Amino acid sequence: MSYRYEIRLSGSGGQGLILMGIILAEAIGIYDGKYVAQTQSYGPEARGGSSKSEVIVSDEEIDYPKAMKLDLFLAMNQKSCDEFYLDLKPEGLLIVDATFVTQIPIPKAFRIPFTQIAREKFKREMVANIVALGALSQLTPIVSSKAIEAAVLARVPKGTEKLNRDALKAGMAAAKRAKKEWTGTEVVPAVPKEELQDSY
Amino acid sequence: MSYRYEIRLSGSGGQGLILMGIILAEAIGIYDGKYVAQTQSYGPEARGGSSKSEVIVSDEEIDYPKAMKLDLFLAMNQKSCDEFYLDLKPEGLLIVDATFVTQIPIPKAFRIPFTQIAREKFKREMVANIVALGALSQLTPIVSSKAIEAAVLARVPKGTEKLNRDALKAGMAAAKRAKKEWTGTEVVPAVPKEELQDSY
Repeated sequence: MSYRYEIRLSGSGGQGLILMGIILAEAIGIYDGKYVAQTQSYGPEARGGSSKSEVIVSDEEIDYPKAMKLDLFLAMNQKSCDEFYLDLKPEGLLIVDATFVTQIPIPKAFRIPFTQIAREKFKREMVANIVALGALSQLTPIVSSKAIEAAVLARVPKGTEKLNRDALKAGMAAAKRAKKEWTGTEVVPAVPKEELQDSY
Repeated sequence: MSYRYEIRLSGSGGQGLILMGIILAEAIGIYDGKYVAQTQSYGPEARGGSSKSEVIVSDEEIDYPKAMKLDLFLAMNQKSCDEFYLDLKPEGLLIVDATFVTQIPIPKAFRIPFTQIAREKFKREMVANIVALGALSQLTPIVSSKAIEAAVLARVPKGTEKLNRDALKAGMAAAKRAKKEWTGTEVVPAVPKEELQDSY
């Protein structure tokens, strides 16, 4: 019995969504050995706008590489959350960057402050996407954390391996913590800001 | 009347085909303002294998983002040239990296030694993909050289802007030269090796 798993990553232009999609696709396709198609689309409104990257996973060749009903939706800003949450399946998984997404449109969601973690723990907002990849690897069985780590290290610039490995691990720890707090029936509370330095 | 223009870039794993696809898609979608979908696919055989990146361009939203009949096919190695040339339309454009592709399967093709130019002129094989982007911008009207330059500079690591701009320009110069030599009826001769240092 074949399966199809659809992921959309979205946010604003500078948040590294496209690199994130490529790393996720390579983790699943090259390191975990499944069929993967990874896509990004641009329209005339693309300049300065929002960014969207999609990853489709299957156990057979993928004929239609565009997402239709999402199994997993990551929103790195409020605008993309509002724009796309209706594409999520009823049982689908919503993950938001709680730094920027404060209005959660559905009752169930994992809220983790990826950008805040990147900023406070690493002084580098640009690793928020890697923090998010770490979290994602703990929240879905579609990718293994080993494959994610291998794919990240293969793609990031030489000399930044330690920073990126640490960012991944911070994301994994934040996700484990969020899972513990998960009740399954209500919005998961965001981690209080003052605990950030210690806990991540 | 709507159009659809299909591009496939292919080669071996380390040749930077995916970054090339993203830069090309951003040049056309963000800077030139057309609709673009950019895709890469992986299968269980992906580890250590060949790499393939596709860019579809249209004047309307793209429903099916996978290439079916190619308008433009760039082959950076012999294996991918052999594997995919049959997907080219009869009037389609074939561009090969003459450093690695020596057997040209169809009578019409642009042969430019991208990797050799990168190696001899810049001592950096890794800019072969940027040299190829420069050439491509001269060989197809689907992207402007201005848009390609803006997209390259937005994506390459800080500090490498001059190297990449020079690589683009070397590719443009090589393509202009190849176009002059183009007869339209036979295989375009590769540029003789001994002239490389002077002419690019």
